[in-house]
Order: sequence, then C-alpha cells, then structure tokens
Amino acid sequence: MIVEMRKNALPREIDDVIQKAGSLGFSFQQNVGTDKTVIAILGGNTGQISTDIFAILPGVVNVTRIMKPYKLASREFKHKDTIVKIGSAEIGGKKLAVMAGPCAVESRKQLEEATRIVKNAGACVLRGGAFKPRSSPFSFQGLEEAGLEMLAEVKKQFDIPIVTEVVDPHHVDMVARYADILQVGARNMQNFSLLSELGKLKHPVLLKRGLANTVTEWLTAADYVLAGGNHHVILCERGIRTFEDSTRFSMDISSVAVIKKSSHLPVIVDPSHAAGHYSLVPSLARAAIAAGADGLLIEVHPNPKEALVDGLQSLTPSDFRRLMGEIKSIAAALGRSV
Amino acid sequence: MIVEMRKNALPREIDDVIQKAGSLGFSFQQNVGTDKTVIAILGGNTGQISTDIFAILPGVVNVTRIMKPYKLASREFKHKDTIVKIGSAEIGGKKLAVMAGPCAVESRKQLEEATRIVKNAGACVLRGGAFKPRSSPFSFQGLEEAGLEMLAEVKKQFDIPIVTEVVDPHHVDMVARYADILQVGARNMQNFSLLSELGKLKHPVLLKRGLANTVTEWLTAADYVLAGGNHHVILCERGIRTFEDSTRFSMDISSVAVIKKSSHLPVIVDPSHAAGHYSLVPSLARAAIAAGADGLLIEVHPNPKEALVDGLQSLTPSDFRRLMGEIKSIAAALGRSV
Amino acid sequence: MIVEMRKNALPREIDDVIQKAGSLGFSFQQNVGTDKTVIAILGGNTGQISTDIFAILPGVVNVTRIMKPYKLASREFKHKDTIVKIGSAEIGGKKLAVMAGPCAVESRKQLEEATRIVKNAGACVLRGGAFKPRSSPFSFQGLEEAGLEMLAEVKKQFDIPIVTEVVDPHHVDMVARYADILQVGARNMQNFSLLSELGKLKHPVLLKRGLANTVTEWLTAADYVLAGGNHHVILCERGIRTFEDSTRFSMDISSVAVIKKSSHLPVIVDPSHAAGHYSLVPSLARAAIAAGADGLLIEVHPNPKEALVDGLQSLTPSDFRRLMGEIKSIAAALGRSV
Amino acid sequence: MIVEMRKNALPREIDDVIQKAGSLGFSFQQNVGTDKTVIAILGGNTGQISTDIFAILPGVVNVTRIMKPYKLASREFKHKDTIVKIGSAEIGGKKLAVMAGPCAVESRKQLEEATRIVKNAGACVLRGGAFKPRSSPFSFQGLEEAGLEMLAEVKKQFDIPIVTEVVDPHHVDMVARYADILQVGARNMQNFSLLSELGKLKHPVLLKRGLANTVTEWLTAADYVLAGGNHHVILCERGIRTFEDSTRFSMDISSVAVIKKSSHLPVIVDPSHAAGHYSLVPSLARAAIAAGADGLLIEVHPNPKEALVDGLQSLTPSDFRRLMGEIKSIAAALGRSV
Repeated sequence: MIVEMRKNALPREIDDVIQKAGSLGFSFQQNVGTDKTVIAILGGNTGQISTDIFAILPGVVNVTRIMKPYKLASREFKHKDTIVKIGSAEIGGKKLAVMAGPCAVESRKQLEEATRIVKNAGACVLRGGAFKPRSSPFSFQGLEEAGLEMLAEVKKQFDIPIVTEVVDPHHVDMVARYADILQVGARNMQNFSLLSELGKLKHPVLLKRGLANTVTEWLTAADYVLAGGNHHVILCERGIRTFEDSTRFSMDISSVAVIKKSSHLPVIVDPSHAAGHYSLVPSLARAAIAAGADGLLIEVHPNPKEALVDGLQSLTPSDFRRLMGEIKSIAAALGRSV
Repeated sequence: MIVEMRKNALPREIDDVIQKAGSLGFSFQQNVGTDKTVIAILGGNTGQISTDIFAILPGVVNVTRIMKPYKLASREFKHKDTIVKIGSAEIGGKKLAVMAGPCAVESRKQLEEATRIVKNAGACVLRGGAFKPRSSPFSFQGLEEAGLEMLAEVKKQFDIPIVTEVVDPHHVDMVARYADILQVGARNMQNFSLLSELGKLKHPVLLKRGLANTVTEWLTAADYVLAGGNHHVILCERGIRTFEDSTRFSMDISSVAVIKKSSHLPVIVDPSHAAGHYSLVPSLARAAIAAGADGLLIEVHPNPKEALVDGLQSLTPSDFRRLMGEIKSIAAALGRSV
Repeated sequence: MIVEMRKNALPREIDDVIQKAGSLGFSFQQNVGTDKTVIAILGGNTGQISTDIFAILPGVVNVTRIMKPYKLASREFKHKDTIVKIGSAEIGGKKLAVMAGPCAVESRKQLEEATRIVKNAGACVLRGGAFKPRSSPFSFQGLEEAGLEMLAEVKKQFDIPIVTEVVDPHHVDMVARYADILQVGARNMQNFSLLSELGKLKHPVLLKRGLANTVTEWLTAADYVLAGGNHHVILCERGIRTFEDSTRFSMDISSVAVIKKSSHLPVIVDPSHAAGHYSLVPSLARAAIAAGADGLLIEVHPNPKEALVDGLQSLTPSDFRRLMGEIKSIAAALGRSV
Repeated sequence: MIVEMRKNALPREIDDVIQKAGSLGFSFQQNVGTDKTVIAILGGNTGQISTDIFAILPGVVNVTRIMKPYKLASREFKHKDTIVKIGSAEIGGKKLAVMAGPCAVESRKQLEEATRIVKNAGACVLRGGAFKPRSSPFSFQGLEEAGLEMLAEVKKQFDIPIVTEVVDPHHVDMVARYADILQVGARNMQNFSLLSELGKLKHPVLLKRGLANTVTEWLTAADYVLAGGNHHVILCERGIRTFEDSTRFSMDISSVAVIKKSSHLPVIVDPSHAAGHYSLVPSLARAAIAAGADGLLIEVHPNPKEALVDGLQSLTPSDFRRLMGEIKSIAAALGRSV
C-alpha cells in the first residue's frame, strides 16, 4: 500500500502514518521525493485491509493499493489451473464444457425435449432455472421446488449433470439436494450471505459476474466461497452494463484473458444473457472460445416462440447444432476439444 | 408497445403479430408506412409484459415499449406525492428529513456519542448498520443482532427513530422488531425475495438505487414492495458506477428530478457513499437539496479516524454541524425547512 | 417516429402534432389506446429528423424513433456487403486483412524493420502514425510530414499499402498524397469537419469507433463520409470506456455481429488499443476473428521496450508471428483465409 | 511512480528498472516487501511520463502513477483561484456568471429577442452557436461566419460579451475576431490541434468536458491551452455518458467539488446538454450552484418550439426568469451573488 503525503506534510503527520502501520503489524519504507513524501506500507496482508485506514489520516492525499484485495482466487496464491470435476466432465482442462438448456424449467415435456436436443448436440451439462429472479413482480417467477424435481428426473433419465440457480441463502441445502452445480446469478454476485452458505458445500459453484462489477471485485467475491473451504468455483462472464444500447449487456471478452492471467479458476462465458438476441449469440460464443474460455453457458429452447422467459435470446435446436459444429472447429484450431 | 416489421415483411408475418396480440387480450392498430409496417399493440398492461413475446416472431425487427414496466410507483397511477410518516417526522413533504449516524454500529458508547451529535445538529432519524455487506470476506461484518439491540437502546434514550439495513429475507422480522425504517442496500435492490418480504410489512422501506440500475429499474423494484401492500417506500440515490475514478461512484443528481416527474414516492440522497471521501460530501449534500431531494442519508462518526468501516466518507461532528447550517439556508431559499 | 401523448391529452394538443407532421411532409396514423393516444409519424426520412421537433410540443410525453438515424451505411439501403479494395488486397471479403506496424513512426530504420517483420508474417497493410494525438502536451507528438515521407519510402521498398491517421481537416490532402488508407482516430469519430473532407476523396477511410459512442452513432458518422460520395469506409472497433479498470478500454466484441446485421460496411478490430497490454492482445485478436471481423489492426514494434509511444501494447516480432499462426487456424475453421 | 515487481523477480530485472529511472534523470527508492519488491521512482516530472516506460520491462507487474498527469491546471502548481475577466464580468470569484442564449444562431431577429430576454433576466454573457457539430450529416450545421456577424451585432447593440464554439483549428483566428470567449465542445476536448491554437490566444477559453473523459483527462486537456501561454481557461461540466437512459447524459455533479479541490481553474455547469429536456434543467442548475460551481451555461430560446437545434432542452423566457430567481436565492444562501 502506497501512502502519498501532501506537499509540505508535517513530520507529525508522517509519524502518524508510520505509527498506524506499526500498530497493524506492517513494516514501512519512507521515500522522500523532491515534491512530496511517499510511504510504502509493507506486509503480506495489505491487500485485505481498507485503504481508508490511512487515507483518513491528516496530511494524506492519496492511498494506492499494490496488493489485490482477493487472495485465494489469485494465481499468486495457487499457480496451477483449478480443474472442477462434475461426474466425468472436467471444467478448466483441455476439453471445453458446454452447458445448455432452457432459461426456465416450464414443464417436464419441455425439459425432456430440451435435454435430448442439447445432449445429442454435445452439451455436457444441462442448464435450467427453477427459481427466476425477475425484475418485475408481475412476471413468471419459476416453478421452484417442482422445477428442481423435474431437473432431477431428466438428469437420471439422460445421465447428464445439472446446473441451476440458487437465489436465497436458505434454499442452498434444498437446491444442493437436486443440482450438481449451484449457480449464483449476476444480481447476487455480492450477496455475501449466499456466498458464505455456498462456501460450506462441496458442490461446484458457478459464479456469474455482477453486471456492474470489475474483475477484481468478482475474484474477491470468489474468495468468499473459497474462504469457506469450497474450492470448486467456476467463473462465468455474462456481460456488463455500459452505454451501448444495441445489445442487452456488453460482453466483456477481455475478462477471459485477464482472469487467465490473474487467477487459477476456470472461466466460462454466457453469450445469451450478454447479447439478449439469438441472432448475436453464435458470434459471441465463437469469440469466447477463441479468447480462451473454458466453456459456454447457452440458452436453448425447443421452441423459443413459446418460451415463458427470455425466448428472444434462446437458440433453436438447429441453430444450436450449427453453433456446436463451429465451436468444435475453433476448439480444434486451438488444440482443444468439446 | 410498438412492433416494427422488416421491409417487405410477409402478410403472414404481420398476421402472426396481430394474432399474438389478440391472444393476450390486447387490441392493435396497423400503420403501413412507405418503407415498412409498424403495429401498435394497445392495452392497459402492455408495460408489464416482455417485449420478447413479439420480438421473437418472424419478420419482426424491433419492439419498443411505450408504457413503463413499473406501475404502482408511477405518478400516472397515483398523482399526489406520497408522504411517509415515521413518528412525528414526515418524508416527502415541505420539511426535509436528514438521517445521519455512523456507517456501522461499533459499540454502545460510539453509538451514543453519534446519536447525541446528529440529533443536536438537527437530524430526525438515526442511521447505523448492524449487518454490513462487505466486498471482502476478511473485513468486519457488523455486530448483527447485538448491534440492533444497541440501536433500540439509543432510540429509546434519545427518542429518535432508526433506519438500519436488512440483507437477508429471513432477517426481515427480526430487524423489523428493532427498526423504524428498513433499508435495502444498493447490492440488494433486485434481491426480489427480500423485496417481497418487505412488501408484507407496514414499516417504511428505504430502497437504495442499485449501482448499475436505471431509474426505470429502480421504480420497478419499488413495485415489488408496493405490490405486496406496503405503500411506505422511500427511494435513496447513492451514486452509480461509471468510468470516472476520482469519486467512489458518480452521484446521478438528475435522478431526483426524473423521479419527481415520474413517481409519487419521496426520494432522498446519500452523498457519503456516492463520494467516498468526506471532503466532497458537503458539496453533494447541498446539491441534492437544491435539486429537490426530500432529505439526506449521511455518515457521521464521532471520530472518523477510528471508524471500523467507511471512515473516509464520514463527516466529523463539526463538519456535520456546518453542513446542517448550509442545508438550512438552501432549504429556506427554496421554501422548505429542515 | 412514435409520438406518445400524455393521459388525457387535449384534442388541440393531438392536432398540433398531426399538423407538425403534415408541415414536414409526413403522413400519420393515430392510435387511441385505453390509457393514452399514440401517433405514428410515417415517411421515408423520419430517421434523419430530430425527435425534439415533436417532443417539444405540449401534451407530448415521449417520442421514439423507429427508423435509424443513419441511412447510407445501413444494410437496408444497400444489402450486399461492401468490399474495399487496396491494391491487390480486399477488405470485407472471404480473405481477412491484417494491418500491422508500430504505433508511431520513429525513424526510417525502425519503420523498415517493422515492415519487414509484419510483411513476412502475413500482414497485408502497414500501419504507422505520423501525427499522434496525445493526451498530454508534454508527450511526443509524432514526426508529422517527415513521418509520412518515411512511410511512402518503405511502402515502395516493400510493396505494401499504408494506413495512417489524419487529425486535422486541413491535412487531408497532404496525408492523401502519401497514404493508401486514411485513418480517423477514436477521438475524431465525430469531428465532422474532418469527416466531410474525407467524403470528398476516393481513398478508403478507416473510421475508428469513438470511445463513448454507440454503434448507431458510429454508423451515423460513417454516413458523413458516404454522403460526400466516398463509398470506401472501413469500420474499426477499438474498445469503449466502461467502469472496468483491468484493461485500458473494454473491447465491445458484440459490435462485430451488430454491424454485420445492420450495415454493409466491413469491420475490423484493433485489439492493441482496447487491451492496453501486450499480454492480452492475442486473446482479443483471436476473439475478433472468431466473432466475424474482417481483419485486425495490430501494433507490432521491433523492440517494444524502446518504443516512444504505446510500447506496452505492442507485440514483439515473435509474439506477432505466433498470433498470425493462430489467426490462420481460426480463419480456416470458419472458411476464411488470411 | 510506483513500480511493482512480480514475486521472485530476478535481481537483473530490478536493476533494469533502476537503470531506466536513472537514464531519465529520476532517483529511486527500493522497498523489499515480504512478498515482492516495489520501487518508487522519484522526481518532479514523473506525472508527465508514460507509465508504459517501466511497465514494459521484464518482471514488472504493475506501475502506479502517484503524480497527476496534469501540472499547470493543478492547485499544487498554483494555489490561488484563477479569476477570468471578460469586460466587467468575472468568472471564478464571489459573483456567479450565468451565460445564456439559444443553442444555434438562427436569424438576427431570433438572436435579438433572445439577447433581450437573457440580459434582462440577469445573464452576463450571451451564448449562441454559429458552427454546430451535428451527429447526422443531414441536420442543420449552423450559419457559420454569417452567424458570427450577427453575434457581433447584438453584442454591440446590447453591450454583452459573447461565447461561441470553434470546431476547427483553422477557424480560431476568425472566431476570435468576433467572440469574447471561445468554446471548445465536448467532442473536441481532446482535439489537440484545436487546443494548441487556442493556447496562442489571449481570449478566454471555455473547455467543455468530453462525454467519456475523466476529470483527470479534462485537466490534462486544459494543460494544452495553459502550456501555450493562455491562462484564461474556464472549465464546463456538461454530463458524461453512462447506462442511464432517462436523461441525455448524466451530469457528474461531483466533478465540481473534485475540481475545486484539485485545480485553481473556475468551473461552470451546462445543465441543458446534460439533461436533454427542459423540464429537468432547473433542478440541475440549482444543484450546480449549490455544489459550488462558478456559473451556468444555459440554453434559452424565445420560442423553443421553433428552434432549429435542441429546442427540447431550451428554457422558455418565463422558465428562465423563474430559474434566475431561484439561483439568486441559493447564491445568497451561500454568500455569493449573481
């Protein structure tokens, strides 16, 4: 942590900073520049304390963090890539993981059809929402536990693992009874009660990026789950909020490379929520794989026109099959497989 | 809802749109332009259905919503300003409501001192957090129920109502036993389980704007609480996330006028979280009142240097007293009082 | 254009809107909904007039544009893909165009080395800046006309076309004497004097997206050049400004698919300026090609450590060669070539 | 400048950084932390060199700037507030400066009416555009020099100074013959050719903030004008681009306090362009003055319904008079006057 003093700071002000550092168990080094004094606060945990502790002191102009606020998710903490295993599937290795299915579980029949389609086309995990956080109270909110039961049934029938969202810390145990991977939605990325509960499980957690959160905040949120002892975290980029209005969100494709550089965790991409329109999904999906993502989370519906939720961003079965072909070619070009 | 067809759309495609509208109980009007056909979908509830229902149909290029997605929070639904009463205080009337206090409840002594300071300076509600959603798992998380008890004690001692945050739907009843106003933090603005629980109460709810949410989404979130039967919603602007990096968030001062135009709900402003630095708080607080806000939510700490959370954005007692003087002058200039 | 009247708008207010439409040569259609009247303004040029003309009228609540504000750049205006030819190279066809070279022309020797490297690796156009718009007045501003002369020399020596930036409308003729493609930088995307001058040329124009401009505004800027009679416009995505701070800008990968859908113009991507760091460039470059971009604009420097400008985002010769290999594989997987 | 080395950086890598610092005339101090080495680069001009110079070196993970990139505009360079004089008016002192008038000069008659209105209501400078940068090539582009002549005529007739925009570096001399203050529009904030030309003048320059620029970049742009020897720079906040869509731009009210803290230059606010709708302008204008701005730039039109440009954001004469009354009251409450 670098503490910059104002020009002509008083010796007493500089001493205060140094004493504060000492009281927190940190060492320090003082740099007397031509214009101003700068004090480096040194120690292994400076990333986890607030910069405010020094910024509030008299004579301090600015405090800059050198260590990142996240720790367990960092590549400095663990150099080797984390590979998350779900049954026979692996996420984070050479093989790409495509998770696909409808936005919401609507009926047993719809789910069965969707599962058949995505499994045959090469998806290794089925997605489907039973709890749907909707921005309007007047919209369809999901089938809840009945939806989870349908997921469990098709899981057995088609022998395919399941990822589904959990929205309430008090539902964690219930959802964990049915699902293979528990998904944290973008709006809950900083729902710390929820993250703490998930940290107590052994189930893999799919942590979506918040729509207004930096990569640094995202990895710090992952630390909540990791700190609880659950090491099976999969990150999922799904677009951030910007001024651009021709897509629902702006997919931050750069985050894939940034995460591969700073973290050991696997990262997949959800092009469906980023785009908001089926016609843009294949382009984003191909880009994600080429950028180095470890997989995709894609909405596919047997009949998007009849979907109760997010039909516009769902691929039809034939569009999904065509996309899987393209993904396989790109993966092969990069020495990976689907 | 306005459905724009592509150039040379087939008659069958146009018919599909019209039939869909009919099946949902809407009427329609068809506008045959020189270049393309545009169909207006008419009916009182078009704001509450998804545009996707039409956008997914073949031949449709774009769907534009004319009605807003929120309803109960709109000024069209209720023309007269809502005034929320807390004891003898009123929020949304001529008199401004200043809510002040420490970010977090740290100890009985700290809270008592803070309450004395803010009450004497003219605040009408005490703020203080017992549950603190923190972005790092290694930070202080609040005193939880012990903090609520301290709040209840000083409430009685100083005869001042209390606002405090609730972060978990399952804590709503507990927090409601202690607090006068229940605050929903920015990160929970779209925590719909939480909003639904609050809709069942009679307690006023202070709904902070999400840091990546539009005013429209904010008012739609308010609809969740209102739809449950709780009409006592106070909105609170606290800054949005932008590219500007000299402040923690960018306070969207325009939202005050936009809300006064589109909604009947009272709106206050939290300059402390927006600015992130005490030196900027007075300027933002004065601006909020001049813009027409109904009050302020301000962090004040007896000794910011010792604060466990957010000390950097807390005003000292003397800064707060000076600010209250300025606020009173501006309020008077605009025909209001504090 | 859709004009929404307030609830209970007066007949006189509705008449005013209709008369205004008539006076501008538009026809109209009136939709009397249950709650409010909505008037559709019809005609071929409604995209080019300001919505304000109606929004200012009494009783009008909102005006929504249905037609896009751009026209000549739209796929509706010209369905077939535009292919821009530069010597034997084509931009916008099956073959991808990689333009590469140093950010700034620094010396004849540096330029010669850079050209040899990028040409041998498969680039078909040499990039190099002679006029450098720098955010600080104390930074190196480019070699200006001396730099253009060096570009012209290596162009002849290596038989490779040249793209270089023009920053001042009064330099257009001078730059056009040396360069094959004239580049408009992001900060000049809405420098309309400059765009108008470029519209008078026959040279291809590389129009970079402004860092705070929507795709719609970008295509409207392209209309400035096209309206002057110059049909050779190449678009270049280079990242937009967002809150994310781990990259210099956020590359909006979605814009590639959006442009392919809405416009006939070719679009390439500049991963170097978007990323701001060489380690992220290959990931973004691969993503761009997989998304469907028609080419790349990449910074390559013989010795990035000695670069006068933007060394951090420049690839070394060996990194560039490796990337070209990956690009060729991905292109082949998608049925294209480099 | 703080250079952070990677964990286990080689001694040779650390030496390279130190030697580079020496070669640029800087001194340094080395901090050996428990985890990593951090090197402080010290010297008066480290704000003006690029961080890339060090970031590109092997073993360097991150480089953080401590000194700001701007210098002449900083309060550290010049502590006392700059007051810009225009005739008998002063900008930056106790008295607030309200500049008002139509967006575009349309005719002698329109301009005369507008001038009479704004002068009588208390404006001290007349605004009016003769060169209009328009986002569509099909829109009205301004009366150009004929417009400047009209401005000069009403200036004489009403004895009021004039502010008008200059968009092309080659127009600077012409515009300077007519205008008292030369305005740089938001889209030209980083048009460095234009800024350099204005630096050669003695006329005050009104520098609008770019819609995607940070306050730091804005002050760095001001340095361009100041470095040329022209000390008469007035800053003007006019809203930044964000995701919020209920206003045309998001007025960054915080920038007023940030600038007052970091710079000696006067700052005014343009609520008209920020809001985009006349109904929101008074709220924003009042907020600006309460925040501590030194004045306002407001669009007023004798008959907004007939305005050729931006009628929707123009105040009517009576709205402007009412607003001036409110502004006077708020100014008085804060010990200032209009």
